[in-house]
Amino acid sequence: MKVLIAGMGLIGGSFALALRDRGIADEILGVESSEGNAAEALRLGLADRIVAFEEGIPQADLVVLATPVDTIPLMAVKALNRVNGSQVVMDLGSIKAELCEVISMHARRGRFVAVHPMWGTEYSGPRAAQHGAFTGRNVVLCEVERSDPDALAMAERIFRTLEAPAVYMGAEEHDLHAAYVSHISHITSFALALTVLEKEREERHIFDLAGGGFESTVRLAKSSAATWVPIMLRNKYNLLDVLREHIHQLQIMRRMIERDDAEGLKAAFDRANSIQRIIH
Amino acid sequence: MKVLIAGMGLIGGSFALALRDRGIADEILGVESSEGNAAEALRLGLADRIVAFEEGIPQADLVVLATPVDTIPLMAVKALNRVNGSQVVMDLGSIKAELCEVISMHARRGRFVAVHPMWGTEYSGPRAAQHGAFTGRNVVLCEVERSDPDALAMAERIFRTLEAPAVYMGAEEHDLHAAYVSHISHITSFALALTVLEKEREERHIFDLAGGGFESTVRLAKSSAATWVPIMLRNKYNLLDVLREHIHQLQIMRRMIERDDAEGLKAAFDRANSIQRIIH
Repeated sequence: MKVLIAGMGLIGGSFALALRDRGIADEILGVESSEGNAAEALRLGLADRIVAFEEGIPQADLVVLATPVDTIPLMAVKALNRVNGSQVVMDLGSIKAELCEVISMHARRGRFVAVHPMWGTEYSGPRAAQHGAFTGRNVVLCEVERSDPDALAMAERIFRTLEAPAVYMGAEEHDLHAAYVSHISHITSFALALTVLEKEREERHIFDLAGGGFESTVRLAKSSAATWVPIMLRNKYNLLDVLREHIHQLQIMRRMIERDDAEGLKAAFDRANSIQRIIH
Repeated sequence: MKVLIAGMGLIGGSFALALRDRGIADEILGVESSEGNAAEALRLGLADRIVAFEEGIPQADLVVLATPVDTIPLMAVKALNRVNGSQVVMDLGSIKAELCEVISMHARRGRFVAVHPMWGTEYSGPRAAQHGAFTGRNVVLCEVERSDPDALAMAERIFRTLEAPAVYMGAEEHDLHAAYVSHISHITSFALALTVLEKEREERHIFDLAGGGFESTVRLAKSSAATWVPIMLRNKYNLLDVLREHIHQLQIMRRMIERDDAEGLKAAFDRANSIQRIIH
């Protein structure tokens, strides 16, 4: 199979490696707006050739969109405008409602499969690409009833080969849940990094004292603005809702600490502990 | 060397393993108020015998306090009341100002070394004890000018053997920095867990969507209230200060998202990225 991947960064690059490692793709054409990234993608073997998006589409069995989420809806339309009835277009973005709405009335909507593999790291660009990235992680497929059966089957086959279990969800529902379990984590991590950088002038001491706890909570603050600003703004209302609740929870804790309310804090921390039923 | 360790949980238990693994301790006496933990500590080989605190002190070359931080100052005084001029008392707690103030006028203050090894996990109890726990992590020694040279030398020798580099700091300074790089991370993690649990009724979906980001930011929310409520309350003023700044940063981000301020968010995320100079 010949695959065109637009965006050769963390996600697109890792997907390229996975397709090669599992023998799914014979040839990978890469699209990259940055010349530096294009050269890097070739050097790292993520793509066999770098092509222009429109030029690559007719050559590919599968077109994959792995660019920042604000660019995906328009690229999806442009790709659908150019594919025939046997080609498939798939995105790997972390926002789905706007995308699915934009393509909803497209004459070739059926050729599109909206996909969100639940994997990522705080690094970006072609050099952040990893082997084995999606294996063992769930992949969310949205509005699959709008995809042609053969297009959906191709996406499902790929992720089954990657050993990524499929989960099915509506697009709105996906964005809501993504705000809770991914986007808010990034906001809190960015804010925590800023808090520490703001307050802590002698950085040497941060380095001295940082134990495992700090590293894991601020790790996501290394994530790139180019990826995350569009995600935050495209998932604005869900995110504001969760952010409001999170600030509220912090204010409750602040008041309990102010009042030396050991029992209140104990009850809150005990309740928070039940998160271990969900993450292991 | 014979060592008495009060508190056979995550920290005390891991310290026991480290002392044995490196051949530092010939015999370890454990103090445990919980019968279940006492039995567990013996079964896991963390302690050779379980003894009463006062009974164990005269038998030990080194007395180690690894109980919740609210209990440490009083135990420190009781230990100092009972040791002779060659025994050493050391704590492993994460709060230092109150402790150092309480023992400051004690006739045997010099026998005490205030120690905070920068290591921990979200688990607790004897079964959470790990081999190799402190190796490669810094250890903070507070107010070392108040410790007798031989007592300090013993503590330094132990952590040098464990390959944990020593960092020296005042007690107030330690607590301030600990609030920034450890305690606030726990507060945000607890609050994030509560936010998600509060808002997300269909837990199945949290599990489906949770990628690496969520897990690493809420991991600390599994930490025990018994350990963390005393830490939060004993470091109240420093923590409130950091918490106020953190809530402020979140409110700024909320306003930027509300206003679709992509440039403002980009500048904030770019600034947050500089945390990678500090953590790697």
